[in-house]
Amino acid sequence: MAPHPLSALSLDETNLARDVVKDSYSDVVIQFRQILLHEPPKSQVTAFLDLEHAGKVTDETPRPPRLALATYDVIGGTKFPEYHESIVDLREKKRVGHEVVSSDAHHGSLAIHEFDTLVQVVQASPLFQAKIAELDLPEGFEVVVEPWPYGAPDAADGRMRLFQALIFARDTRSGNPDSNFYAYPLPLIPVMDAHTKEIIRIEELATGGKGDPLTGKTHAAHILGHNAAAEYVPELLPEGTRQDLKPLGVVQPDGPSFSVTDGNLIQWQKWSMRATFNSREGAVLHDIRYDGRSILYRLSMSDMTVPYADARAPFHRKQAFDFGDGGLGHCVNNLALGCDCLGVIKYFDGVLVGSDGTATETKNVICLHEQDNGVGWKHTNWRTGRAVVTRRRELVVQFIITLANYEYAFNFIFDQAAGITVESRATGIVSVVHIDEGKTSDYGNVVSPGVLAQNHQHVFCVRIDPAIDGPKNTLVQEESLPVRLDKRINPNGNFYEIRKTEIATSVGLDVNSAAPHNNRVFKIQNNSKLNPISGRPVGYKLTPPPTQLLLADPNCTQSKRALFARHHLWATKYKDHELYAGGKYTLQSSLEVGGVHDAAARNDDVLDEDVVLWSVFGLTHNPRVEDWPVMPVEIMQLHLTPSDFFTCNPAIDVPSNKDPTSKQVGEVTEAVTCCKL
Amino acid sequence: MAPHPLSALSLDETNLARDVVKDSYSDVVIQFRQILLHEPPKSQVTAFLDLEHAGKVTDETPRPPRLALATYDVIGGTKFPEYHESIVDLREKKRVGHEVVSSDAHHGSLAIHEFDTLVQVVQASPLFQAKIAELDLPEGFEVVVEPWPYGAPDAADGRMRLFQALIFARDTRSGNPDSNFYAYPLPLIPVMDAHTKEIIRIEELATGGKGDPLTGKTHAAHILGHNAAAEYVPELLPEGTRQDLKPLGVVQPDGPSFSVTDGNLIQWQKWSMRATFNSREGAVLHDIRYDGRSILYRLSMSDMTVPYADARAPFHRKQAFDFGDGGLGHCVNNLALGCDCLGVIKYFDGVLVGSDGTATETKNVICLHEQDNGVGWKHTNWRTGRAVVTRRRELVVQFIITLANYEYAFNFIFDQAAGITVESRATGIVSVVHIDEGKTSDYGNVVSPGVLAQNHQHVFCVRIDPAIDGPKNTLVQEESLPVRLDKRINPNGNFYEIRKTEIATSVGLDVNSAAPHNNRVFKIQNNSKLNPISGRPVGYKLTPPPTQLLLADPNCTQSKRALFARHHLWATKYKDHELYAGGKYTLQSSLEVGGVHDAAARNDDVLDEDVVLWSVFGLTHNPRVEDWPVMPVEIMQLHLTPSDFFTCNPAIDVPSNKDPTSKQVGEVTEAVTCCKL
Repeated sequence: MAPHPLSALSLDETNLARDVVKDSYSDVVIQFRQILLHEPPKSQVTAFLDLEHAGKVTDETPRPPRLALATYDVIGGTKFPEYHESIVDLREKKRVGHEVVSSDAHHGSLAIHEFDTLVQVVQASPLFQAKIAELDLPEGFEVVVEPWPYGAPDAADGRMRLFQALIFARDTRSGNPDSNFYAYPLPLIPVMDAHTKEIIRIEELATGGKGDPLTGKTHAAHILGHNAAAEYVPELLPEGTRQDLKPLGVVQPDGPSFSVTDGNLIQWQKWSMRATFNSREGAVLHDIRYDGRSILYRLSMSDMTVPYADARAPFHRKQAFDFGDGGLGHCVNNLALGCDCLGVIKYFDGVLVGSDGTATETKNVICLHEQDNGVGWKHTNWRTGRAVVTRRRELVVQFIITLANYEYAFNFIFDQAAGITVESRATGIVSVVHIDEGKTSDYGNVVSPGVLAQNHQHVFCVRIDPAIDGPKNTLVQEESLPVRLDKRINPNGNFYEIRKTEIATSVGLDVNSAAPHNNRVFKIQNNSKLNPISGRPVGYKLTPPPTQLLLADPNCTQSKRALFARHHLWATKYKDHELYAGGKYTLQSSLEVGGVHDAAARNDDVLDEDVVLWSVFGLTHNPRVEDWPVMPVEIMQLHLTPSDFFTCNPAIDVPSNKDPTSKQVGEVTEAVTCCKL
Repeated sequence: MAPHPLSALSLDETNLARDVVKDSYSDVVIQFRQILLHEPPKSQVTAFLDLEHAGKVTDETPRPPRLALATYDVIGGTKFPEYHESIVDLREKKRVGHEVVSSDAHHGSLAIHEFDTLVQVVQASPLFQAKIAELDLPEGFEVVVEPWPYGAPDAADGRMRLFQALIFARDTRSGNPDSNFYAYPLPLIPVMDAHTKEIIRIEELATGGKGDPLTGKTHAAHILGHNAAAEYVPELLPEGTRQDLKPLGVVQPDGPSFSVTDGNLIQWQKWSMRATFNSREGAVLHDIRYDGRSILYRLSMSDMTVPYADARAPFHRKQAFDFGDGGLGHCVNNLALGCDCLGVIKYFDGVLVGSDGTATETKNVICLHEQDNGVGWKHTNWRTGRAVVTRRRELVVQFIITLANYEYAFNFIFDQAAGITVESRATGIVSVVHIDEGKTSDYGNVVSPGVLAQNHQHVFCVRIDPAIDGPKNTLVQEESLPVRLDKRINPNGNFYEIRKTEIATSVGLDVNSAAPHNNRVFKIQNNSKLNPISGRPVGYKLTPPPTQLLLADPNCTQSKRALFARHHLWATKYKDHELYAGGKYTLQSSLEVGGVHDAAARNDDVLDEDVVLWSVFGLTHNPRVEDWPVMPVEIMQLHLTPSDFFTCNPAIDVPSNKDPTSKQVGEVTEAVTCCKL
């Protein structure tokens, strides 16, 4: 039987796509970058889903074609590799779309083998070796090459495909391969031409502090003379780990409350959804419903950008697009039982491809589990002393990525009151450069001797494709606004007005300039369905976090290639395959092309239409010493909650059973729960 | 041995205070309101704490006097009761302070016996009975009288001490005393003179909708004809509780990681603090330290206000100060094992007094437990595949209060990375009034037939008395600000500036008008101590949530009696016993007196001084149908995190042990944790 339209590419399908592509060529080498499901048009999927939810799907039900998008280089005919993209129909076993993308327009996403090459080329470079020799590293230190995307090219770079590497030194004397080399940054950034595989230059980094010029060498002869170890693996901690933390476990004697059937259909506490994994976006959730009613068609992390604010060249080129530049497939963590979540866990595997296009399974890239999050709702009737209290149980879909020094955990969290939370946890090791002894800097904070953690921002974009009781929805801006004393309408001064504004045309919106004065929130509603109790359109509330947007000058490249980061919430009209806030091609981009900014600029009508929301939020991260050597999680959350979608609290039927496993310290008293008012 | 200066009044001490007060009078009746610890001057406490933390306290160490504040009415000599306040020295067994507070100036806080009287007087009132008869309640419905504080008096009310009652009807036919009467609001508010114990008037409430006038009767003859049941106790739910939620328990086989000694000294994961309970503020934490270093002298919920926005009189008088009006002592929940938190719980009891001043113990008013909150920090070395991941364990000090229809859970949360979170969870039943069939309103939302949930705000104030490595601290406003392209200082446009402004004079500050553009945060730092790594003053970062401030017209009473709600963060100079943001007397106040607004208006110098911070945040709550009949928790959080206080991540030594109790669904694979980049 054909796979469900909302299932990821299998190993076999991926290999089939590879074969079809390879069979289209002869006498050339094909080097693959990614093979992704090319999702079917929404119209075809929703037709299928309507049948499915009506219980009418049979083996004969027509299914959309299974399509794969393969991206790859063709190496042969011309001097340099050509970047191609093909759409493969897996049923027909043929290419149904094909495009050669000129490097004058875009660069294909980075592939892991390019990073491997970079490391080898840097290490073998006599020029690099000479520069290292000048630094006079202490005995027992070896050089570590950390591959990075190049960021935005400068004018002189032209359209070359470039990679850069940050350089560190590792103290090998402990014999421990996980000794933290980030404590020893070296002031060199070699730059490699990806086509010639040559080091075209080595940037020598300024290492000064306040008052020092933007360029020029100021560091001491023995550059690491003032640096110090900063270990995080437990066996290297000078004082070991703390010994007084007692175990805390989560037990689910009857198993989890969720089920996973049909490969990827998750059902839990009236929720249903399908989960897929792909190497560009990580975990993606589809066809999200509560009690059978449609809420979202698709939910995903769309992209993010991390620009650094050090004014000294070439640090303006430290700007990662962690989803767009190379996809996160090869950065995704294989999660471990008892480490990344507690309780009873269901893991999902993913599919990745190597440079030859061969698919491999990557284990445990998504974990699914339940968690308790405190009191869910409670009321005590003080007249009778009767308390009814429920716990807030949550379902978590988690994936974690490692991007060189840094990690992000992304959690899609569902609760019993029909709320959805998208959570991002930033952790890992902050990006650092060398700073001379005794200096401080306007560009960051000294977090360890000789180590400057540069100021930067993390700006995330979550793509929300709503389907509130159907695909035709409307975004409404809702503000709570003060009203002056007025004997006619506000005689006592306590009235405030709720002003609702329907968003008719695709646009980028802000919660910035007056958030606390207007309490601006957004509702996505279905104007054709009224709540039978309140008479208002059924909807969900979206509360975009009023976090800082991109700080870089709007006229600089760092800003122009991340136009999505200029507004908190974008509303665009749905278009098949328009998934990426920063555009399809972010690697080495100078301008965001085909991203959410362009989509909004179409000025599409989005009133009672298939509107898509893009929520942008982030963290201005001016590092503190406490972020070193591995930073405690910084937690950011985006909330979607039903607003007149249901006819009462959807969690009102959650049982208020006493947990039998809880225990009391000391004298056990007969606990009553009541209010003695 | 004398009690620790940071311990709450014991039962015996409270009764002793009662006796000393009563012995000061003859031939009168003394009716008590509250008996609270009158905390010793900070100078005396810190002198003691310095010795204590140096291990030098002996039985002979001088201790501050134990003082109690008793508030009470003297009934006898004059026509009306007189409100008195006395300070009692418990060692000397005598009054050392005494004041008669005129009702021309302030009203004493409400006492439970006044609410009991109100209910009786309303029910017995022939006028009230006649009004009820007019409403022609259905067979089997009985009247429920819900006592409320009166809010701000109107000019005509003079200085009378008044109480109001909201009126509901309860369907008795189920025989279940917890059938939800809030589903049947009646349009009457009787007002009682507390001294004469007479109903002075009964307000007849408008029940109209959009377009209807602000006053006047519009409701149908059989007023409850269109209302419907809205039950929340499980046995009354029409479809019962959901049956597919499987148990999830928290087990701590070796017990908790915390200890509680000396009555109230909590020690956990390098943290130490003392917890007390009093009937005005609930749980209060004192002398909070991490690894022996002082962070906060005192942390407490100071007050809150809940103004309602319905323009129709007398709804402007729906404005509770849930801490100030009567203290929350009699509203505090006695927490139950296995309900209000999971795991191994330590409960603390409290002391309350009745109208005769006799102290009673109230059990389990604070609970202390640990919780897991996901990944704490993680880093994977992609070269070796080695992942180090720790869990984020938290210690929670929780108390929950019920205020008639509504509940709040307050959590002080401590984490291993030395962060403090103050969390407020709003739940319970939203306050409702009657609305005619088929109408909708600008003043709220119809959440059940005939039931209008009025728009309102919750504005909280947390009092933070910092002691960052000592009492002399400075508040610093820190903003991240854009910088224009400039070849001298910002050649690539990516630089942004961090601007720090020391707050020299007591003041109210906002994060409102430009929060996302300036990323305004605050640091409380000790300028006399520099971090040895970064060279910056040691400090803690405070991130005031950029939530909406009070919306009421600044010239109306609702606004003037809650001046504290006009700014997000107040900085004042410490003054003994200045604890309450809304002032000591909020019951029936017309203006905030002696609150944080007045404290800031002293224009005290707070640079390198004993500065106190008051963080104001809240929720503009425009109810949704999903808030009915009991609302899912709305969670608000305030974060305090170390910022260059330590020399590295304080949680770096947290062990990364695998949890042995976690289980995997389905086929068990050999999970590796690595990044394959």
